[in-house]
Amino acid sequence: MPDASFTPTDRSRVKRLHERGKYDEASIFAILDAAFIAHVGYVMEGQPFVTPTAFWRQGRTLYWHGSAASRMLRFQEKGVPACVTVTHLDGLVLARSGFHHSINYRSVMAFGTAKLVDDPREEAAQLDLFIDRLYPGRRAELRPNETQELKGTTVIAMEIEEASAKTRTGHPKDDEADYALDCWAGVIPIQQVVGKPEADPRLKKGVDFPTGLTRYRDGARFDELLVAQMTE
Amino acid sequence: MPDASFTPTDRSRVKRLHERGKYDEASIFAILDAAFIAHVGYVMEGQPFVTPTAFWRQGRTLYWHGSAASRMLRFQEKGVPACVTVTHLDGLVLARSGFHHSINYRSVMAFGTAKLVDDPREEAAQLDLFIDRLYPGRRAELRPNETQELKGTTVIAMEIEEASAKTRTGHPKDDEADYALDCWAGVIPIQQVVGKPEADPRLKKGVDFPTGLTRYRDGARFDELLVAQMTE
Repeated sequence: MPDASFTPTDRSRVKRLHERGKYDEASIFAILDAAFIAHVGYVMEGQPFVTPTAFWRQGRTLYWHGSAASRMLRFQEKGVPACVTVTHLDGLVLARSGFHHSINYRSVMAFGTAKLVDDPREEAAQLDLFIDRLYPGRRAELRPNETQELKGTTVIAMEIEEASAKTRTGHPKDDEADYALDCWAGVIPIQQVVGKPEADPRLKKGVDFPTGLTRYRDGARFDELLVAQMTE
Repeated sequence: MPDASFTPTDRSRVKRLHERGKYDEASIFAILDAAFIAHVGYVMEGQPFVTPTAFWRQGRTLYWHGSAASRMLRFQEKGVPACVTVTHLDGLVLARSGFHHSINYRSVMAFGTAKLVDDPREEAAQLDLFIDRLYPGRRAELRPNETQELKGTTVIAMEIEEASAKTRTGHPKDDEADYALDCWAGVIPIQQVVGKPEADPRLKKGVDFPTGLTRYRDGARFDELLVAQMTE
């Protein structure tokens, strides 16, 4: 479905600067797949909570996981409304007036119902998918998961019911008269990058950095790396 | 108050891996001040929303802003429960089993009531503080804000009632037997960095990059830069 889109309702439609909003799967998945951390919003007894968590996607479903003892996950497994937001900060936009300063960014707000992945085989398969997404080839080097480790882990799934993407790119949009001012204007890019891998001091002698992880080189953009690994 | 702390209740106490939790102002402010984007959670008609936004801090109060036409801000100005979460991803922790893989991070969850800054002078002062925090010395180069620009801008304040910080640092903690495996283990650092500033193609000839912004040099860590500018 190359043209598949989410149908916005009042909940997800981008109202302010609506020209920045998109609802098609390609735009939304591209932003989600370039991210590693999502902020999950949920409501307990009227109180909003926003918890950061690693996440992954399969089709229209988002997944996250953690300890089976986690308060957040124990609450979410029952099936609760959630909002999963992903944000990439891409740059600071310096205009010629305070008012027109802005940010370049890519963000997605996805709405759905969080619930437990209660089939143990599906849970194990999703955890494998998470490792594979981040660390291609790594599972072959790891010992298998133990039964009690899987029992101690909860995976939550949220099928996306609605989602919107919002992005800004490019230079400032100043008032026409302000272009004459003696004021620097432009964009300061911000990027999330990989640093030089640091071996565990207890690493067994002779074990090299995995060949499957060569995209994790010093200075590589993390968002681009994640997308590149998904499409390999 | 060097030893000032927030008093955790059931809402903010770190339960899972509670040794990673902190409640003192110094720890919490250090994480907040190193960040530029927060994720603000709020509840409209039972539905959780998580909106990413630039923010700043003065004392125990967090501020964010936007268009007076923003649905989020129009809702928040009435005084609503909010959760403001800030997250720094610092590294991927590769262990010798899937189970012990982890993330190095610094995060804060802050709880309070969002409400409008309705005094126009306080609003203008806070917007100045925001510019000063990000761009030292820049206000002297900008034209003053116009009255209708301030009227078109809403600033929201949330005094922190409770907050908790949660962090992880360092290498994997593997099961003792697994240290004998032929498996690479360690940390892949992740950092948010500044790129090379890009001048607006319409920049007036002869205008140099501002001397007050020299910390924004290619490769600088954005979190460290923000903190350094605050303490200057």
